[in-house]
Amino acid sequence: MEASAEISSKTSLNGYVMTGGSGNQSYAKNSSYQRDVADATKLLIQNAVSEHLNPRNFPGLETFYVTDIGCSVGPNTFIAVQNIIDAVNLRYQISNDKIPEFQVLFNDHTQNDFNTLFKSLPLNREYYASGIPGSFHSNLFPRASLHFVHTSYSLQWLSCVPKEIITKNKGRIYHIGAGEEVTNAYAKQHAADFANFLQARAREVVPGGLMVIVLPSRPNGVPHSRVSFNILNGIFSSTFADLAKKCLPKITTQDVPHVVSLGTRAITEGLIKEHFGEEILDGLFEHFTNKLVESLKDVESGLGVNLFLLLKRKDEDTSTF
Amino acid sequence: MEASAEISSKTSLNGYVMTGGSGNQSYAKNSSYQRDVADATKLLIQNAVSEHLNPRNFPGLETFYVTDIGCSVGPNTFIAVQNIIDAVNLRYQISNDKIPEFQVLFNDHTQNDFNTLFKSLPLNREYYASGIPGSFHSNLFPRASLHFVHTSYSLQWLSCVPKEIITKNKGRIYHIGAGEEVTNAYAKQHAADFANFLQARAREVVPGGLMVIVLPSRPNGVPHSRVSFNILNGIFSSTFADLAKKCLPKITTQDVPHVVSLGTRAITEGLIKEHFGEEILDGLFEHFTNKLVESLKDVESGLGVNLFLLLKRKDEDTSTF
Repeated sequence: MEASAEISSKTSLNGYVMTGGSGNQSYAKNSSYQRDVADATKLLIQNAVSEHLNPRNFPGLETFYVTDIGCSVGPNTFIAVQNIIDAVNLRYQISNDKIPEFQVLFNDHTQNDFNTLFKSLPLNREYYASGIPGSFHSNLFPRASLHFVHTSYSLQWLSCVPKEIITKNKGRIYHIGAGEEVTNAYAKQHAADFANFLQARAREVVPGGLMVIVLPSRPNGVPHSRVSFNILNGIFSSTFADLAKKCLPKITTQDVPHVVSLGTRAITEGLIKEHFGEEILDGLFEHFTNKLVESLKDVESGLGVNLFLLLKRKDEDTSTF
Repeated sequence: MEASAEISSKTSLNGYVMTGGSGNQSYAKNSSYQRDVADATKLLIQNAVSEHLNPRNFPGLETFYVTDIGCSVGPNTFIAVQNIIDAVNLRYQISNDKIPEFQVLFNDHTQNDFNTLFKSLPLNREYYASGIPGSFHSNLFPRASLHFVHTSYSLQWLSCVPKEIITKNKGRIYHIGAGEEVTNAYAKQHAADFANFLQARAREVVPGGLMVIVLPSRPNGVPHSRVSFNILNGIFSSTFADLAKKCLPKITTQDVPHVVSLGTRAITEGLIKEHFGEEILDGLFEHFTNKLVESLKDVESGLGVNLFLLLKRKDEDTSTF
């Protein structure tokens, strides 16, 4: 596996966000792959809501609160929340319950370009929209205030570069042959971050509420630690952890290496600039595109694997959170 | 009265916002007068909450929702919401009710600089923060979801330039001697906008919830129409309409004309640019400063008059809203 393709998931910093605005190298213009993921998960979300969301858990509910955590600047977040709202609407219609209003809470780091996000909100939306700035590793919402949490392609971002990496590995971008120690440092950081994420959401999701986590994955593994799943078992129904599914988004373009390279740049250029300087960007991504052309088959198969995780908040006492 | 000083309240456009960012001519750096207003209303808010907010109206409340409508980019909005939260906290303490969590909803037009607002959120805040983009002349929040609405120096902005003005008065910035027809056109627009604002909030505020409206005023008048007060009487408790008070913020600087001119520019320059071109700005505001120097006494007395209006949502059936 090309270690350089791992930059995006392995050296992220707390507060780092996608390239804003709507220019040629912006996330808004270079996230078609993430849109494919949103399309591919539509049916999974519909099934999840149809089978596991029960309106009777929320008697007399006036407003149904949906959040997309790590929403970036759109437009993919709008597709995802619309899929959720459509599914919930259908579920309420089927059981003949009174359909609530919808409040959508778009979350990302404080440095995210919320101005662009707000200006591109769908004009014909049938929900109230708000932006929630802050890190998803801590509490963002009041206690028991969410009915549906969605987060796609966010939890692979770590809250910080592990200490061990900064001291041992400073200045190195290329990790082929990195020792087990390095891998373990990242795994440990991921486990801690994932645990914090689950603790925070456990406090915020109402009993009976659902949480969908979509993560880029590899054919051979699930990127979660035992620690994290212990938390899951306590607070969220783990019955559905084995619903984990692979979904295969369609590749919509012929020019895969170019698209992947631009997409990776939209996600990582701010991070690389900060660590290595702006002057290396053009050369680096030209080199990266060439590398992708050389290993097209690996790129395509690696792209197609995602983890879809559905969790349901148990009806436990929430007073300790 | 200098008609030019009325530009800000009389030719506003839907979606127009304060000058963003944090530069020398930004609203963030030139709104000390509005801060004085926030300071001056602190005691009034405290009294309003102490006398008219009853925790028993919201049994078992987990989250108290506060909104600041027309929040701009800060920092004054942070002072205002902190005053409200302090007052509510105190009220709950006094009656020994369980203090809820606070969710603050910062609202302004979609074009507002929410990025700056989010980056300047107080780090030690004890509330959840969110941004709500959209016009306050329409619904912004779910039904019966707000406990406290605050809006300061916002409702004087009209949703559009009245039709009559565009056809009859095009290209004129200076209105000395404008006929009664012009005045009436603005009054009519203001009445319609104020009615829309009240209708929208009537749907959103819970029974027993409070609304504070702070408006720049003149020693001789209250800028509300009979139509608007009819709506007030129906939905909001009009007992408190006669609480309308004048509050006199302290002038904190010796250099009043310069400060007033910069403050007016931060509020109006985008609007003037749009109608008359960027090139007139420097000359216009130099001229304006000189005019203010000439009539310093009028400026100081005119500045000091504000209307503080407290409304309480009646416990009527809200199903028609």
